[in-house]
Amino acid sequence: MDNLYAVIMAGGSGTRFWPLSREAMPKQLLRIDGGETLIQQTIARVSPLVPIDRIYIVTNKNHAEQIRFQVPEIRKENYIIEPVAKNTAAAIGLAAIHINHYNPDGVMAVLAADHVIRHKDRFLDTLKDACGIARSGYLVTIGIKPTRPETGYGYIEAGDNIANQGFQIFSVRRFVEKPDVQTARGYVEAGSYYWNSGMFVWRAGVILDEISRHMVPLYKGLKEIESSLGQGTEDFVTGEIFSKLESISIDYGVMEKSDKVAVVPADLGWNDVGSWTALDEISNRDANGNVITGNVVDVDSKDSIIYATNRLVATLGLKDTVVVDTEDATLICRKDMAQDVKKIVMELKRRGAEEHVTHRTVVRPWGSYTLLEKGERYKIKRIMVNPGARLSLQMHHHRSEHWVVVSGTARVRRGEEVFFVNPNESTYISMEMKHRLENPGKIPLQIIEVQNGEYLEEDDIIRFDDEYGRE
Amino acid sequence: MDNLYAVIMAGGSGTRFWPLSREAMPKQLLRIDGGETLIQQTIARVSPLVPIDRIYIVTNKNHAEQIRFQVPEIRKENYIIEPVAKNTAAAIGLAAIHINHYNPDGVMAVLAADHVIRHKDRFLDTLKDACGIARSGYLVTIGIKPTRPETGYGYIEAGDNIANQGFQIFSVRRFVEKPDVQTARGYVEAGSYYWNSGMFVWRAGVILDEISRHMVPLYKGLKEIESSLGQGTEDFVTGEIFSKLESISIDYGVMEKSDKVAVVPADLGWNDVGSWTALDEISNRDANGNVITGNVVDVDSKDSIIYATNRLVATLGLKDTVVVDTEDATLICRKDMAQDVKKIVMELKRRGAEEHVTHRTVVRPWGSYTLLEKGERYKIKRIMVNPGARLSLQMHHHRSEHWVVVSGTARVRRGEEVFFVNPNESTYISMEMKHRLENPGKIPLQIIEVQNGEYLEEDDIIRFDDEYGRE
Repeated sequence: MDNLYAVIMAGGSGTRFWPLSREAMPKQLLRIDGGETLIQQTIARVSPLVPIDRIYIVTNKNHAEQIRFQVPEIRKENYIIEPVAKNTAAAIGLAAIHINHYNPDGVMAVLAADHVIRHKDRFLDTLKDACGIARSGYLVTIGIKPTRPETGYGYIEAGDNIANQGFQIFSVRRFVEKPDVQTARGYVEAGSYYWNSGMFVWRAGVILDEISRHMVPLYKGLKEIESSLGQGTEDFVTGEIFSKLESISIDYGVMEKSDKVAVVPADLGWNDVGSWTALDEISNRDANGNVITGNVVDVDSKDSIIYATNRLVATLGLKDTVVVDTEDATLICRKDMAQDVKKIVMELKRRGAEEHVTHRTVVRPWGSYTLLEKGERYKIKRIMVNPGARLSLQMHHHRSEHWVVVSGTARVRRGEEVFFVNPNESTYISMEMKHRLENPGKIPLQIIEVQNGEYLEEDDIIRFDDEYGRE
Repeated sequence: MDNLYAVIMAGGSGTRFWPLSREAMPKQLLRIDGGETLIQQTIARVSPLVPIDRIYIVTNKNHAEQIRFQVPEIRKENYIIEPVAKNTAAAIGLAAIHINHYNPDGVMAVLAADHVIRHKDRFLDTLKDACGIARSGYLVTIGIKPTRPETGYGYIEAGDNIANQGFQIFSVRRFVEKPDVQTARGYVEAGSYYWNSGMFVWRAGVILDEISRHMVPLYKGLKEIESSLGQGTEDFVTGEIFSKLESISIDYGVMEKSDKVAVVPADLGWNDVGSWTALDEISNRDANGNVITGNVVDVDSKDSIIYATNRLVATLGLKDTVVVDTEDATLICRKDMAQDVKKIVMELKRRGAEEHVTHRTVVRPWGSYTLLEKGERYKIKRIMVNPGARLSLQMHHHRSEHWVVVSGTARVRRGEEVFFVNPNESTYISMEMKHRLENPGKIPLQIIEVQNGEYLEEDDIIRFDDEYGRE
């Protein structure tokens, strides 16, 4: 498997998991089923087969920062940044250019960052099989054996078995869009249809050849980007090219047109976690068919998904309902309309609301902060600084800050002074005073910050020095 | 109407309006339909007929304090305090003793503090009619002409017309419990059934006579209380007597047994606001049959009640569902189970939770405070002090307090010092330091308080001096 690369597609915005997912915190970054986040699970899953330095992450600039906190083991060079989201064809093409440039024998396994796969060993076996057939020039797609007449997935109809080593590897007769229930039932009974998982394995050179055949403008753009690699102009050129590209999926742009496509069937306990109803599949239901998480008091509900955090959620007699509660927003929705949560997000955008953009708790490389209240000319935050971490040396033009330490010890630089602030002590940072907050201790530092000023947005910050390379 | 007294029954705990209502803030104290609170509406409604010094309020000690903030025009002497809740027979008997003691010709109109009545003029006319017939010795109950086969109310079957002045006043054939839908339909068709509104008019002396006939132990207790009136032992004697009384309603204890009962039919646009579904009757539904209040984004819901405050509530495809969102708790319930919200409250009690007891915002005579966060050894509150108001001179054994003023001006007494704290300034009150917070200004004072300490409950307070007579 020396030439096998994993390409983790992590650019998704995940609006269908609102209000748990936000623009700044999409699905791949969340603990949907408890345990690790979906992208952490994805990388852990592929790691036995692909060493960490051959795992690439395709995402945008904003998400890259968050992903780096979650999987610090992936080095910065392995991030492939989409300057603007242009769907999977462009993103995959960009990854292929990079891999092919440095290793013309490279085989890429394209994997989503935000799926759940229960059978980890079978997944690795499937990848190995797929890798073998990919070497001989096929575009291999992983087809999931359907376990129910799911209408939320596209299907792949398999043709003849093309494997000569006794594996089950089929040619592809056709890709079909999400069917209605009746059609889906027929597919499940036929036995020759598989769910289109969006996981692919192919030689980087082969997918580029197929792009050159079926998507000429994309191919030309990719060649221009390739010639900029290592020249210092790569980001600029990629930005220019991407801004003009068509937004199109790899399925539609290449897979449905190519004659080199093969499907490897697999039974992986796979779920694309496409909407809240996925919890019915990936979590354990109780005796009443409910999936209940968090601070919930339920009386007589059935077949419902109730996802709470610390706030109290009380439910009474619900049926086939999804309830998702977060600190600043609550969603209540009919289960069979869970796909339409994006309509809510669209409406929030239209209103200029903030609840689809960020959570009240925002994770930073040094820890996190939680917005407790925003009022006229003031804002209250709880700030948590990890042991040994420090914020940038910074200054604000429009606000002053009162800090009260409630646990741990703060080392504060204020102008030229440096001093410690202990629990039940406070300090004050006036406007335009250079300052830095640091946790020199062994336990988390928690401070309550009361900001005062006319303008209290995050962008009123001048950073002079930052541990984490931020500007 | 010189001898007419209004007795407002305001002891209800209102668990069926959780989470908007709490033990410390029952339904009568809430703005359910916008505008004034239900008790404010009740008092305003009866005021054209009954002067303020003849309006009595029957409630318990805790609610009395809150009611006094809401209706400061009612003097303290007009509160009749139930030492312990013993249902309506005891509460009404206690009020009757007081009124009869000071005015043997007194006629009492017993009114609930937490009902809605749309037709205010008709209500006053009905009261006048009822008062007339009550003078001649009847126990008059106000029967509401049913407009639908409601199963949530008890009914009164009317007998013969007993009025000799051309009014419609009937004898009562029987009281019937809440019927099933079929029976209720029959009642509506029959035309001789009325909803039992729980509003009564009678001479204090007459209801006491009837109590002496049908509820001997209660009568004896009331006579003992009467003999303590004006002796300084009234509170003690009332407490002793009440602790031993049976908990029984006036309907069951007297009305169903007495032969002096009459019913005055009325069409008042009355609603007892008995559960969240009452909003369907007392509020305006939109084109989709929804009643929507607050920060709500709805897509495709029908016939639902969605009650939000400032937090965002997003609803999608709901049908016949009630959603009630408050700062610290959210209820989602099937409409036809809205009566069972009390089951949720019972479960919260069982768990020792706080969300059925108090709101995050607690109203005080000097203003209010809102709990923003409670953590390990700290608590954060926003405190609002009304212009000209001041808190008690106080001290805490177990906590220190950091105060940051965010608007208005604070006058702070700390030990022997007195000083002013302006916006964007802070001060610190150490443990066991006597202190007092005052708003000397013309606009509300808002401060953010960060408490530190091992024990942070409200009962760690020693009051030395208080404007509002609290200990």
